[in-house]
Amino acid sequence: MATQRWEVGILGATGMVGQQLVRRLEGHPWFRLAWVAASERSEGRTYGEIPWLLGGSVPEFARDLRVERPIAGRAPQLLFSALDAEAATRYEHAFAAAGHIVVSNARTHRLEGDVPLLIPEVNPDHLALLAAQRAGRPWRGAIVTNPNCSTVFLALVLAACRRFAPSRVLVTTFQAASGAGHPGVPSWDLLGNVVPFIDGEEEKIETETKKILGTCGDGGVAPAPMAISAQAARVPVLEGHTEAISMGFDAPPSEADLVSALRGFSNLPAGIVLPSAPKAPIIHLPERDRPQPRLDANRADGMAVCVGRVRACPVLDFKLVALGHNTIRGAAGAAILNAELLAVRGWLSEGAPSWS
Amino acid sequence: MATQRWEVGILGATGMVGQQLVRRLEGHPWFRLAWVAASERSEGRTYGEIPWLLGGSVPEFARDLRVERPIAGRAPQLLFSALDAEAATRYEHAFAAAGHIVVSNARTHRLEGDVPLLIPEVNPDHLALLAAQRAGRPWRGAIVTNPNCSTVFLALVLAACRRFAPSRVLVTTFQAASGAGHPGVPSWDLLGNVVPFIDGEEEKIETETKKILGTCGDGGVAPAPMAISAQAARVPVLEGHTEAISMGFDAPPSEADLVSALRGFSNLPAGIVLPSAPKAPIIHLPERDRPQPRLDANRADGMAVCVGRVRACPVLDFKLVALGHNTIRGAAGAAILNAELLAVRGWLSEGAPSWS
Amino acid sequence: MATQRWEVGILGATGMVGQQLVRRLEGHPWFRLAWVAASERSEGRTYGEIPWLLGGSVPEFARDLRVERPIAGRAPQLLFSALDAEAATRYEHAFAAAGHIVVSNARTHRLEGDVPLLIPEVNPDHLALLAAQRAGRPWRGAIVTNPNCSTVFLALVLAACRRFAPSRVLVTTFQAASGAGHPGVPSWDLLGNVVPFIDGEEEKIETETKKILGTCGDGGVAPAPMAISAQAARVPVLEGHTEAISMGFDAPPSEADLVSALRGFSNLPAGIVLPSAPKAPIIHLPERDRPQPRLDANRADGMAVCVGRVRACPVLDFKLVALGHNTIRGAAGAAILNAELLAVRGWLSEGAPSWS
Amino acid sequence: MATQRWEVGILGATGMVGQQLVRRLEGHPWFRLAWVAASERSEGRTYGEIPWLLGGSVPEFARDLRVERPIAGRAPQLLFSALDAEAATRYEHAFAAAGHIVVSNARTHRLEGDVPLLIPEVNPDHLALLAAQRAGRPWRGAIVTNPNCSTVFLALVLAACRRFAPSRVLVTTFQAASGAGHPGVPSWDLLGNVVPFIDGEEEKIETETKKILGTCGDGGVAPAPMAISAQAARVPVLEGHTEAISMGFDAPPSEADLVSALRGFSNLPAGIVLPSAPKAPIIHLPERDRPQPRLDANRADGMAVCVGRVRACPVLDFKLVALGHNTIRGAAGAAILNAELLAVRGWLSEGAPSWS
Repeated sequence: MATQRWEVGILGATGMVGQQLVRRLEGHPWFRLAWVAASERSEGRTYGEIPWLLGGSVPEFARDLRVERPIAGRAPQLLFSALDAEAATRYEHAFAAAGHIVVSNARTHRLEGDVPLLIPEVNPDHLALLAAQRAGRPWRGAIVTNPNCSTVFLALVLAACRRFAPSRVLVTTFQAASGAGHPGVPSWDLLGNVVPFIDGEEEKIETETKKILGTCGDGGVAPAPMAISAQAARVPVLEGHTEAISMGFDAPPSEADLVSALRGFSNLPAGIVLPSAPKAPIIHLPERDRPQPRLDANRADGMAVCVGRVRACPVLDFKLVALGHNTIRGAAGAAILNAELLAVRGWLSEGAPSWS
Repeated sequence: MATQRWEVGILGATGMVGQQLVRRLEGHPWFRLAWVAASERSEGRTYGEIPWLLGGSVPEFARDLRVERPIAGRAPQLLFSALDAEAATRYEHAFAAAGHIVVSNARTHRLEGDVPLLIPEVNPDHLALLAAQRAGRPWRGAIVTNPNCSTVFLALVLAACRRFAPSRVLVTTFQAASGAGHPGVPSWDLLGNVVPFIDGEEEKIETETKKILGTCGDGGVAPAPMAISAQAARVPVLEGHTEAISMGFDAPPSEADLVSALRGFSNLPAGIVLPSAPKAPIIHLPERDRPQPRLDANRADGMAVCVGRVRACPVLDFKLVALGHNTIRGAAGAAILNAELLAVRGWLSEGAPSWS
Repeated sequence: MATQRWEVGILGATGMVGQQLVRRLEGHPWFRLAWVAASERSEGRTYGEIPWLLGGSVPEFARDLRVERPIAGRAPQLLFSALDAEAATRYEHAFAAAGHIVVSNARTHRLEGDVPLLIPEVNPDHLALLAAQRAGRPWRGAIVTNPNCSTVFLALVLAACRRFAPSRVLVTTFQAASGAGHPGVPSWDLLGNVVPFIDGEEEKIETETKKILGTCGDGGVAPAPMAISAQAARVPVLEGHTEAISMGFDAPPSEADLVSALRGFSNLPAGIVLPSAPKAPIIHLPERDRPQPRLDANRADGMAVCVGRVRACPVLDFKLVALGHNTIRGAAGAAILNAELLAVRGWLSEGAPSWS
Repeated sequence: MATQRWEVGILGATGMVGQQLVRRLEGHPWFRLAWVAASERSEGRTYGEIPWLLGGSVPEFARDLRVERPIAGRAPQLLFSALDAEAATRYEHAFAAAGHIVVSNARTHRLEGDVPLLIPEVNPDHLALLAAQRAGRPWRGAIVTNPNCSTVFLALVLAACRRFAPSRVLVTTFQAASGAGHPGVPSWDLLGNVVPFIDGEEEKIETETKKILGTCGDGGVAPAPMAISAQAARVPVLEGHTEAISMGFDAPPSEADLVSALRGFSNLPAGIVLPSAPKAPIIHLPERDRPQPRLDANRADGMAVCVGRVRACPVLDFKLVALGHNTIRGAAGAAILNAELLAVRGWLSEGAPSWS
């Protein structure tokens, strides 16, 4: 495809995930960032005047963009949404109605029946829901969502094990500070501490995973028939969610088969090449003390899930440790990957954008 | 009983747990610290010259004790052992043979058939093993052990649930830096990180818990018939191990019954009062985001296990979060509590010590 | 004096410093906490329903106090103010006008000419300003302030050196997260980081110190004639501000004389005994790597300043490291100590309180 | 120059700085890593089998190198030394005698009269010392050193100010954990703490800086006539040393002139282009709360010193905050930059290496 064929915008461009979106769109081969929007507080400033949270300085290419008000219809067709749930509730439907393709990281619409909750390497067929969405909604655009950060990593692991029929799954998470956005968790609460509660997180992991692994049919997605139990905790880590997972299977593999299934996994249809897709979505680390967030979260540019310590579980069948970069594979990178799938599947309009 | 009726000593007095023993023996109503021993490196110095790891200064009462070589027979009858496993292998049998009552925190002898692995509120009856120990070993003294730190907290929770017949248990730990002793984990490895591997820890949790909850008979302890699966990780916390636990029961209770069993638990025989025993070994915290190591590890002077977030588990029956102070309830305080039980059960010699 | 002779209240009782005030008033021999006030958000709740930031649970004795609206005249005579600067501007004058003795930790009025900026061991004579305050203000009450946290520690060190005529002082601070209150600094900003800027802090250190060490005369306080330069930074520490100090003297002492002056210092008038005053306000630690916030901030119940590493400075005369507990000696404890001085100096009304 | 014209080796290749050297030699345009040596412990293993400390995995290009014993004469001519001081004492002279050009990060020989203590942008003329070294030592090779990490950053700042004649300098450092190597500081000692002592560090900063800024003559280097006072502390940061600096000048500039001198500084001779040299060795950040180690240490690939908060100092003339990446600009990158200068100055032999 031609270089930077589509102009894109970001709703909620000034938060933690919005900034990761900007950073990852720098030099993107297909998408050109042309529009950023945020709440009133930032209005009228340029993007370069926003406090940049991610180290170094605001990327040069985005520095002069004016931060716009989020007005549907006056923005590129393809929009990434890094809005929080409340703002997403206010804006995303309106933008979809006005013809925008909203690729959202917000939790707001993830569980709606006709909204794809998409991981390209796991359930690319769920994009078929868009037909129902078009049919049933008074929208000229669309909404596609990516899962909650912790969910992405678990879903990738379980998808790789699908042939062994995972039916009972326990996961305990060690989640990084960046997952709470900015300002997020006060340092007084997190320094030298574990906070064993993240509002709504366990429910998201348990519910979203089953939709992602579910079967997409005419009437929407039938959730995968498995029991999932999550315990979520915040730890004093900057980036990278670690997950201690135990899995019971209806067709338990050998340990070697399990490792082999993890290593080789991808469900991306043959012939589809997405710029942000890692060579292998799951990297298996053989060292006995890996993965670790500080050492491994950035592998494959933050887009891989690392797994290690695969071993028998005395209660279920196997246990292992998984790790993913929460604001990349778990948020900004996940959204961009979804948009790339939309692009190759023909959901983005060709031709010059008409919005400006 | 009279004040400080027994003189006591410490093997391995200069490490993290040894120092906690010293701190907790300050002003102890029954035990008077009279002897400290450590490796050659510290020999000849006074205890006040040892680098004190725990904040403030070496307690005044211990400052002038000379650090001795560990020579069996030339020490008080009652000895606390905070030796590492290798040193325990070298010294503990010899001291027991020479007539010492060795109350050990080391892992070395915990799983031997005639060695009590003791938590006074859980299995005080296991003290009966000492008869077999006396009969079968050429010892005039004895060895009693306390469990691994993470094990204590899990075992207390499971003991409280015993009437519901817990049969399948998964536990994921968030363990503090102090659990590795000093120097322990390099700061480079732990700052802003999770290390999902602690050598031997998971095996200890899985095996020791079943012995503690097991049935004590003539031929030793028959392990409790349950399946336990542990995942252990180190997190950047100073003190306090957090555990995310899921439990399946053969006779599942209601949530209210479970909470009630946790709150009211103690298996300490009626009439026995131990100075270091907390009023309630398990404290239930109703807040939705507790327990947290920095806020709760020191409750009940570090001797309680805090539990919170008791709720249904979609895979097993219930899940909850537990927390204990790893170097107190999980080590030094556990050993002192065991010695107190030995005292009230008549295992310590009356009369003036004859060693000095 | 009789037990708990005066009833006291707290303005701003629910923040970090307000909670430290509550904790330190538990069991206070002279003051009985009878009233707590906070912003509208907390109104109508009991103090036990407030999220408790300091570990463990809300102290039992304060649990049932109702959180009141701050209405002047309907509160005890003696009020501790842990208000932020903006709220202090709104409330403190009104309370003083209505007859309350406001012992404030806020920065708002510290530099006003007739307001004592008080450290009992340093400038107890500055209490004389209250006469001018009474004369010049239409108040039946009074306002007394304690310094900024970092200032207290520096001022105590310089006061101890007064006879050597310190004239040039450089200080670099390593300040704890708790100094920013709660929520304060986001964990994303502080984990594994140094933030070399704290708004207004350097100016406070430079200006307040000179007032505290200044000469109290008829027309107010003439600032001490010295040059002070501060660089303030936030570090990932929970409690305890560390200060690297270099001092040039007009009458330079020997190192031994300097240490001796630090060790023996107190300017508290003979015969005055304040319950919260540490035996020695400055503790000298001879170890080469002390003081350290985690190990030393709690010495003398958090009320001492620890100094160490006293040595020659190649540019000025001497350098040293000082440390104080920022929310105790630097805030809540400082205020209570000031109130104790007011009590022994007869500024608190005898007899039953008339407010309720 | 041709690609990778010189083969190079590393003494002490398995420690923190050794690994940074390996990482930064990957793809180096002039140097090809051909040899790694370490202590006996690692002997016989390949470099890929060494525990890799820096995140991700051992770079592919170095994976199959065998870890050699450090035997002089059986290694490339150009050797980087990341040995600790004791090992450097044992090995560096022998390697220089045998004909190797030892570019050392160790402190051992830095202060010897005929050994250049080199920062290419500051004192490239000090390379002239090598003539004296060749004349006075029975060596066919040479030793060139780079400064202590904290020294590099201070020396760059002072060199930029040279025309204003800095004569009195105070610096307080906030040093990262990686500066202590691995295992370095135990996490128990550093988590949530400040350790205000680093053995020998203050002396190094005070002494080395004066040699670097000194005048190179026939008889060696005459130290710069200035007074420097350092206070060094370790903080819970991974990478990046922060320095709070105050400077007094004999010819004080305006603030604008000072900033301008910092921004534009480089003393690298015109026409000399070194691959590892940053475009500007000093980056001035105008934000009021920068530089910060986590956000700024990696600017210019870790090779720049960032400065900010330039402002008047009430005691000396100006104060500012500086920051550098301690294991890159302060160690591995500094050594490579020195070797690049040696290369362009003709100190490295042409032709095929003769060592293997």
